[in-house]
Amino acid sequence: MAQIGIGVVGGGYMGKAHSAAFAAVGTVFETSLKPKLVAICGSTPESSARYAEAFGYQKAAADWQALIADPEVEAVVIASPQATHREIAEAAFAAGKPVLCEKPMGLGLEDAQAMVAAAKASGLANMVAYNYIRTPATQFVRKLIAEGELGQITWFRGEHTEDFHGDPTAPATWRSHGEANGCLGDLAPHILNAARALMGPIAEINAVLKTVYPMRGDVKVTNDDIMTAMCRFDSGVEGHLFASRVATGRKMGYAYEITGTKAAVRFDQEDQNAVWLYRAEGPEAERGFRKILTGPEHPDYLPFCQGPGHGTGYQDQIIIEAKDFVTAIETGEAIWPTFEEGLEVQRVVAAIRASDKTRSWQRVSDF
Amino acid sequence: MAQIGIGVVGGGYMGKAHSAAFAAVGTVFETSLKPKLVAICGSTPESSARYAEAFGYQKAAADWQALIADPEVEAVVIASPQATHREIAEAAFAAGKPVLCEKPMGLGLEDAQAMVAAAKASGLANMVAYNYIRTPATQFVRKLIAEGELGQITWFRGEHTEDFHGDPTAPATWRSHGEANGCLGDLAPHILNAARALMGPIAEINAVLKTVYPMRGDVKVTNDDIMTAMCRFDSGVEGHLFASRVATGRKMGYAYEITGTKAAVRFDQEDQNAVWLYRAEGPEAERGFRKILTGPEHPDYLPFCQGPGHGTGYQDQIIIEAKDFVTAIETGEAIWPTFEEGLEVQRVVAAIRASDKTRSWQRVSDF
Amino acid sequence: MAQIGIGVVGGGYMGKAHSAAFAAVGTVFETSLKPKLVAICGSTPESSARYAEAFGYQKAAADWQALIADPEVEAVVIASPQATHREIAEAAFAAGKPVLCEKPMGLGLEDAQAMVAAAKASGLANMVAYNYIRTPATQFVRKLIAEGELGQITWFRGEHTEDFHGDPTAPATWRSHGEANGCLGDLAPHILNAARALMGPIAEINAVLKTVYPMRGDVKVTNDDIMTAMCRFDSGVEGHLFASRVATGRKMGYAYEITGTKAAVRFDQEDQNAVWLYRAEGPEAERGFRKILTGPEHPDYLPFCQGPGHGTGYQDQIIIEAKDFVTAIETGEAIWPTFEEGLEVQRVVAAIRASDKTRSWQRVSDF
Amino acid sequence: MAQIGIGVVGGGYMGKAHSAAFAAVGTVFETSLKPKLVAICGSTPESSARYAEAFGYQKAAADWQALIADPEVEAVVIASPQATHREIAEAAFAAGKPVLCEKPMGLGLEDAQAMVAAAKASGLANMVAYNYIRTPATQFVRKLIAEGELGQITWFRGEHTEDFHGDPTAPATWRSHGEANGCLGDLAPHILNAARALMGPIAEINAVLKTVYPMRGDVKVTNDDIMTAMCRFDSGVEGHLFASRVATGRKMGYAYEITGTKAAVRFDQEDQNAVWLYRAEGPEAERGFRKILTGPEHPDYLPFCQGPGHGTGYQDQIIIEAKDFVTAIETGEAIWPTFEEGLEVQRVVAAIRASDKTRSWQRVSDF
Repeated sequence: MAQIGIGVVGGGYMGKAHSAAFAAVGTVFETSLKPKLVAICGSTPESSARYAEAFGYQKAAADWQALIADPEVEAVVIASPQATHREIAEAAFAAGKPVLCEKPMGLGLEDAQAMVAAAKASGLANMVAYNYIRTPATQFVRKLIAEGELGQITWFRGEHTEDFHGDPTAPATWRSHGEANGCLGDLAPHILNAARALMGPIAEINAVLKTVYPMRGDVKVTNDDIMTAMCRFDSGVEGHLFASRVATGRKMGYAYEITGTKAAVRFDQEDQNAVWLYRAEGPEAERGFRKILTGPEHPDYLPFCQGPGHGTGYQDQIIIEAKDFVTAIETGEAIWPTFEEGLEVQRVVAAIRASDKTRSWQRVSDF
Repeated sequence: MAQIGIGVVGGGYMGKAHSAAFAAVGTVFETSLKPKLVAICGSTPESSARYAEAFGYQKAAADWQALIADPEVEAVVIASPQATHREIAEAAFAAGKPVLCEKPMGLGLEDAQAMVAAAKASGLANMVAYNYIRTPATQFVRKLIAEGELGQITWFRGEHTEDFHGDPTAPATWRSHGEANGCLGDLAPHILNAARALMGPIAEINAVLKTVYPMRGDVKVTNDDIMTAMCRFDSGVEGHLFASRVATGRKMGYAYEITGTKAAVRFDQEDQNAVWLYRAEGPEAERGFRKILTGPEHPDYLPFCQGPGHGTGYQDQIIIEAKDFVTAIETGEAIWPTFEEGLEVQRVVAAIRASDKTRSWQRVSDF
Repeated sequence: MAQIGIGVVGGGYMGKAHSAAFAAVGTVFETSLKPKLVAICGSTPESSARYAEAFGYQKAAADWQALIADPEVEAVVIASPQATHREIAEAAFAAGKPVLCEKPMGLGLEDAQAMVAAAKASGLANMVAYNYIRTPATQFVRKLIAEGELGQITWFRGEHTEDFHGDPTAPATWRSHGEANGCLGDLAPHILNAARALMGPIAEINAVLKTVYPMRGDVKVTNDDIMTAMCRFDSGVEGHLFASRVATGRKMGYAYEITGTKAAVRFDQEDQNAVWLYRAEGPEAERGFRKILTGPEHPDYLPFCQGPGHGTGYQDQIIIEAKDFVTAIETGEAIWPTFEEGLEVQRVVAAIRASDKTRSWQRVSDF
Repeated sequence: MAQIGIGVVGGGYMGKAHSAAFAAVGTVFETSLKPKLVAICGSTPESSARYAEAFGYQKAAADWQALIADPEVEAVVIASPQATHREIAEAAFAAGKPVLCEKPMGLGLEDAQAMVAAAKASGLANMVAYNYIRTPATQFVRKLIAEGELGQITWFRGEHTEDFHGDPTAPATWRSHGEANGCLGDLAPHILNAARALMGPIAEINAVLKTVYPMRGDVKVTNDDIMTAMCRFDSGVEGHLFASRVATGRKMGYAYEITGTKAAVRFDQEDQNAVWLYRAEGPEAERGFRKILTGPEHPDYLPFCQGPGHGTGYQDQIIIEAKDFVTAIETGEAIWPTFEEGLEVQRVVAAIRASDKTRSWQRVSDF
């Protein structure tokens, strides 16, 4: 049985999720390459030790440098803050170790470009952890599109809406400051990545950023709450893009609608086990959006769920991601989204910032 | 029992709907002023006679001039093509008769301005027949907003989507030509009117028009299939506006979402008896969008439906409109949307056309 | 233009609804026989006069005998209390006038039997006003079944649930007393009628009645709040039947599910413009319940609604019923449910009462 | 760090699911007692070896006797066929090892009684693996009921519906034969367990079993496809219970509705992350069923999902079950459903069989 030693940098929210995922993936998907939890590190030796024990690692690494240097660590997962992504990724690639990096990949365009360069130079497997793209539902939609089942696509609408910042009386937090923590920096990349994964590259974008609650108590909020945009894809199709962290009532509103000549699709992560499909065929009297429950007939459905409707959850997305990363390492296959594709998302983010400042359409290729 | 003689110009789709509505409203809402179906006219004496018999009018008018001249006709409903609206409305006001005019009120801005001038000069009741705005559901949403129940509003999304032009293999029709018959001219005004009725005036708009199926057989389609827009309301709130006649799977997608600090609302005309309301109050564990079925507690609910859930339909909207028009005549109250408000919609339409040509933000007040 | 003079007995909730419906049907459905509102009567000359003026009748009849005797009244609608149905219907048939009678047709089995005898003896058109059966949605489901589109049917579940009696602190009313006003007497017949209309006759039934709130203040509630039942249809299919007036949260829960070999259907009157259809065909990956919006392709859809999704409401059901009654008179066609079918519902009601008392299965044919 | 050695009997569908769950639970819930995958056995040494490698066990046990005898195995999970449950459970308890046993706990009443006796005699932790009962949604509903939030409960409806046997042209399989593999033996226990967990013991039941497709090709189907039932709980509340393996269109229709004086709840496992709650409070105009997305405020929500709406899936239920089993072992707390409660389900199953044969109400306490 072939094993691969995993090292994870960061033991917070996502570090824990990746740890559980890499522990499970060999059983759930029965991958031929079995991940082994070798080492984890936090920001201090104490937190490293705590994480290692809590999540079942063989070792606590003193720091990320030690973790990368450990010969038993054969692949690296970066789940530390955005500001650290670049340096760690460069070191990992330099050490010959494939990298799975948390989204949105560095602090901005420059970081992302450097990370792509390092990945390319190494020739190693690389992925950005946009986990929502991996649900069986969304993989199924990608397949429908790829197989031409929607016909000519004529419209796209995507949003990522949550309301965790929606209470104007709540005090400011770290989320209230810093581009990377704003709605555009933090939430929007999920749906920008989805837009690209489903529709192909965005050619042009016109966007407005807004801080709807500019003060929290006496503290000025210095980043954006809402991104409102229109775009044109390379294909010529136009669309609406939207992200908000103040979308009262929305908890995980990662949602999209795609209209084509032959069919249309609707998806909302808040009911992540369903894809709504309308086919413009058959008698008019019987047409309607049908609610398809994901099941064994759909990509990446957990193989031990024998029938449809058993349901996948948030953690399952991370497990599927782990499977894809392990597969990319084993087979050399490039699996969405690679660092290069992650960089594309950062280009769109940069174009949005420019559009907001100039109140005009911006070409993504200019960034 | 006070009666009012109604004359309807046009006996097609909407002429018939208004006829049935004015016949019913005295019973359904027990208005104190009872409409009496006096006269109708079509485009020929033959069609006038046919409509009069089919819909139960006392007389068939030879033409619209004769209809307006008839002293028993005390109020005029214009349900003829857009190109005829202005001339008929001006004549009706000149003859001292209130007017209910089909949307979107004339062929464009100039017509609409002239119609407003005529209405003002007459001092008579005037309304534009944006019937969807009259559902108990949407009236309830207007009331929630007016009473501050949503708190500070931070976002709006509105669409009017249908798919009657969605089959690219269908031949061109009269709908394929002429600004007034395009998506912007014909469908979009419904949701632009709703946006204004719910959110107040639109300050600026940025829009793109698109003909997604430019050829039907050998025939070039010369108007737009889709309108994609972002806007900023006078209130400062931003929003997305969308209209499409090629929205595969959508049949009556007159839908909107409004997000506020204290609450959020979602509505879709395809389930017109429901308003989805989320209140950011009470224990977190019990929060969620609730599906409220319209009932006697909501504005304009049909009074003989004793409980909620009985349901209103398309024709009921027209009956409510008839009630409102009769009320406006009787009380002198201005009821949404007056000609002036209908003109505002036409201003937004004009701004959208300019934005599409210039690819830039346009101020509505410039039109 | 052929006209038919309508006389309505009763001007309350349903009398008003029928009045508005007969006034509208000639326009809405352009029936060749045009109803004319001739006379109405209430329980006193004063109420008769008030109704006649409010609803636009030519005359106020002194009492129901006078109404039936009026030669201009050519068809009679009975919208007075259940205790009066039999006597009025017998008199109307004796006078040679077709009858549309409010559900559930007399006070019980004996009344219903006498009414059927009178209808048969007269050879005249007769219908029971189970208006919910007339929605385009439910007519469409009947058509699917009739055409074998569901395959062999294997299961049925039907309910009629509302919550108007759900507040245990509310005082007793007339609804709290009398078999005819209880859940079984008043609500359940709607769904029993639907069960029969969709599935054919019920062979056997096993039911329990329950008064869940036996006291309201100091007043004892003397009829039932809930009916819980299992049944076997003549076809051999088994099913669940349920009715409740204390179903907290349900407003118009007239709902059913029908499972067949080839397809399944779900309907809920709270979203009366939709039929959910699942077809066990096509690729597994694309199967799901589809939400079909009723439209011009479905039976009885209002003809001036050009597309699907415009929506019908409660009053439209009454208009469709009026159309059917007029059609039955004009063509001699027996239209569901005739008095004979209404009697069948009463037989099931009687079997349910017996089952509740004996705690055992009862054959409907024994009643 | 305290560890507990887990041994699993059976490596099929459920054996694999439990293996992944015990591997993950220490990280996901950070249990203080950390499960260690010690040994697994299949029906042959070969399958044992294959499972051990695939799922990451330290050892492959030769057979279940060897597994139980292994001193490093400190707790036993029984995921082998029903016929084997009793003997394995008795041996495990005799060896002093706590047991988590797959539902529905033995082949029938006699097995279940013996297993309860063995569990009691041992004093060890024991649980039946009705995993659906563990979703955050259903735990939340249990909490609402326990805290009296629904008021006096007046009605229950529960179903477990799937359609895996719905195609009448499919050949017979092992599922087509044997009481334990029929709808009552296999599917119904899930919802019978839920009914009891939510509503308390069932006092009486009246049920019908049906084989709707009695032949598959030339092969006679010898067990039931459908169970239709009415019941009365000890509390006096009545309800409908239903299970079907031929419910065309239903994939995981584990669903229930509970009506109370103060509130009502609806749940359907096909959208397992939502609970629909209606509260009979606040203004009538704002009442409606609200869709609550499970989140950190609900019991057993995965702790590293920071907000609501991330979603749990089938595998998460098994992980929660693993957590509960580990907790029961560590704390001595009895966690639903214990063997005793699993036996209660088997009593209801026996009462249903008797009711079907006698066509009469049966008291569960008679079994």
